[in-house]
Amino acid sequence: MSKFWNKKTNELLPYVAGEQPKDGVKVIKLNTNENPYPPSPKCRGILDNIDIAELRLYPNTDSQIVRESVANKFGEYGIKAENVFVGNGSDEVLAICWQSFFEEKNNTDKKVLVPSISYSFYPVYSQLYDVETEKIPLKDDFTINADDYIGRENCGIAIANPNAPTSIALSLTDIEKIVKGNPDSVVLIDEAYAAFKNEYETAVTLVNKYPNLIVVKTLSKAYGLAGIRVGYAIGSKELIDGMMRVRDSFNSYPVDRIAQKLAAAAIDDDAYYQECRMKIINTRERAVKELKELGFTVCESSANFVFAKPSWIKAGELYAKLKERGILVRFFDKPVIGDYLRITIGTDEEMNGLISAIKEERA
Amino acid sequence: MSKFWNKKTNELLPYVAGEQPKDGVKVIKLNTNENPYPPSPKCRGILDNIDIAELRLYPNTDSQIVRESVANKFGEYGIKAENVFVGNGSDEVLAICWQSFFEEKNNTDKKVLVPSISYSFYPVYSQLYDVETEKIPLKDDFTINADDYIGRENCGIAIANPNAPTSIALSLTDIEKIVKGNPDSVVLIDEAYAAFKNEYETAVTLVNKYPNLIVVKTLSKAYGLAGIRVGYAIGSKELIDGMMRVRDSFNSYPVDRIAQKLAAAAIDDDAYYQECRMKIINTRERAVKELKELGFTVCESSANFVFAKPSWIKAGELYAKLKERGILVRFFDKPVIGDYLRITIGTDEEMNGLISAIKEERA
Repeated sequence: MSKFWNKKTNELLPYVAGEQPKDGVKVIKLNTNENPYPPSPKCRGILDNIDIAELRLYPNTDSQIVRESVANKFGEYGIKAENVFVGNGSDEVLAICWQSFFEEKNNTDKKVLVPSISYSFYPVYSQLYDVETEKIPLKDDFTINADDYIGRENCGIAIANPNAPTSIALSLTDIEKIVKGNPDSVVLIDEAYAAFKNEYETAVTLVNKYPNLIVVKTLSKAYGLAGIRVGYAIGSKELIDGMMRVRDSFNSYPVDRIAQKLAAAAIDDDAYYQECRMKIINTRERAVKELKELGFTVCESSANFVFAKPSWIKAGELYAKLKERGILVRFFDKPVIGDYLRITIGTDEEMNGLISAIKEERA
Repeated sequence: MSKFWNKKTNELLPYVAGEQPKDGVKVIKLNTNENPYPPSPKCRGILDNIDIAELRLYPNTDSQIVRESVANKFGEYGIKAENVFVGNGSDEVLAICWQSFFEEKNNTDKKVLVPSISYSFYPVYSQLYDVETEKIPLKDDFTINADDYIGRENCGIAIANPNAPTSIALSLTDIEKIVKGNPDSVVLIDEAYAAFKNEYETAVTLVNKYPNLIVVKTLSKAYGLAGIRVGYAIGSKELIDGMMRVRDSFNSYPVDRIAQKLAAAAIDDDAYYQECRMKIINTRERAVKELKELGFTVCESSANFVFAKPSWIKAGELYAKLKERGILVRFFDKPVIGDYLRITIGTDEEMNGLISAIKEERA
């Protein structure tokens, strides 16, 4: 509390990110869903070729080179640069979606629908931007029931697919049902983890059919570039133009020159991206098998993390014991999900370290 | 207008940044107050030493290495890392100040005071964050009268010093009078251009005395790093903590790993910074003299730009003629300031090009 903070700042309950060990401290870091592999080797060449004199100039406001790389990647679905909004990490892109599309409670009785268990930043955005949130319960198996999002009055819908921290994906058929069933609302599909589905699916394929659909993606996960802060949204030009209005009322140059170049190069290197995501999927399948053998209940993961409940110990206790051993996983001390740990998929070696540590704890 | 945009997005009047020519297009660019000199040569070494594998990890949320460099720079005034907030360019830092400190109109009848002519982003932030603005007229000579900000009810004060686009500075004595005279309001002093005063002064020297003072600075001007998007605020720990609450409700990782390292290195290279700002000050003094000889009225500049009124032609016409010649300056087609051009100080060669072009136009 401070007399110098305004009312909202005094009332905020901020998002809490996973802990970051200091550079150089040796841990097995499986707590913030980072990629265990470095980004495209093309990134090194980009840095070598930066003329530092160009850094004196402001970057392109729209991150045009990134828009073009994204348009190229999804060109087969009719995506053009004008359908792409680029921001300072997908957290910023999500925040701008909230600010652009979801109506403030002073202007409406309608609420934005989000799953009761989902990315915990969503209710924080609602609080910051004065939007009322309605949390739609998951089914008992943590899956989302698409029908719950049909015929329910709302000023917008936001769904992470795959969902976090459950790791469970909704089918594209169900996503389309929700988008089609809410033609007057913006439906936001947050695909931060979509690269890790066994059978790749993306709602980007629906963008040209539904002007009310916005799909948010990030370079922080599958592209191994959490450190450069680039995310993007794909939607109808109408939606993208709205986001640009908000951006230009807040910060005209959200993505720096170097980040723009690195992002474009990483997106263009599709072979490397495919290789990384397949390695992570394969490691995940093995880790899930081993965790199940150790008595964990594991949700069916389509993400680069698993959501797993130990049978012989409380999740919070196991979290603490692993931390003592230098292994960081994520524990949410909350109802329902407090029985589970969210464990990022690392390299095979890192997962071996985790499994060995758990075996020793169980022994 | 769009039915998918919320009410505010439909009503926004976004900030319009100066135009950016495409990379490679040859112009004399004197329209966005960039530094004509490259950043510290230390930046090249930073890029060479980036291990791209580290880019897979999220950056430090607080940009701790930048906070420490800033604390070191201003250590003699008692500034510690905890007094520093780092953001994605000073535009983002300013936006977060607005959101943290200035009260929404639903909660107060008080207004935030800004000079009637100042950085045109200020009223845009007010609009975005639902704050009422009261524009305090400048004196006829475009100077700010500090007494106008004393004894006037408000929920905050924001002043650019030196002011933009007038280029005119307020003395530290006047700033202190305003801060002291408003002990219950946050007073924001935007020092984007403070490095270019002939006699260097900064309100940072007052921070330890006044818990209601927040000073915002940028690396985009004197440090020649507009392309990497780093700005910061210095204030009491109480104010900085409030800004962090807002940041963590919006985007936990606003400044990327590479930008953090470049910013810290540039701040640490104080000798290069001093050299650049003195070169720009010297070029400015010469340019002012020549513009006056050509019949311009020129405000007394403490910035890396001048605000100048031609005597023989309308400012808008001269802007257009210079643009035809590949010289970009900034023209604001608005009452009062529409008689003037804002001209960034470039290199001596660039200013020679400008002066020659103006002479040819006059001939």
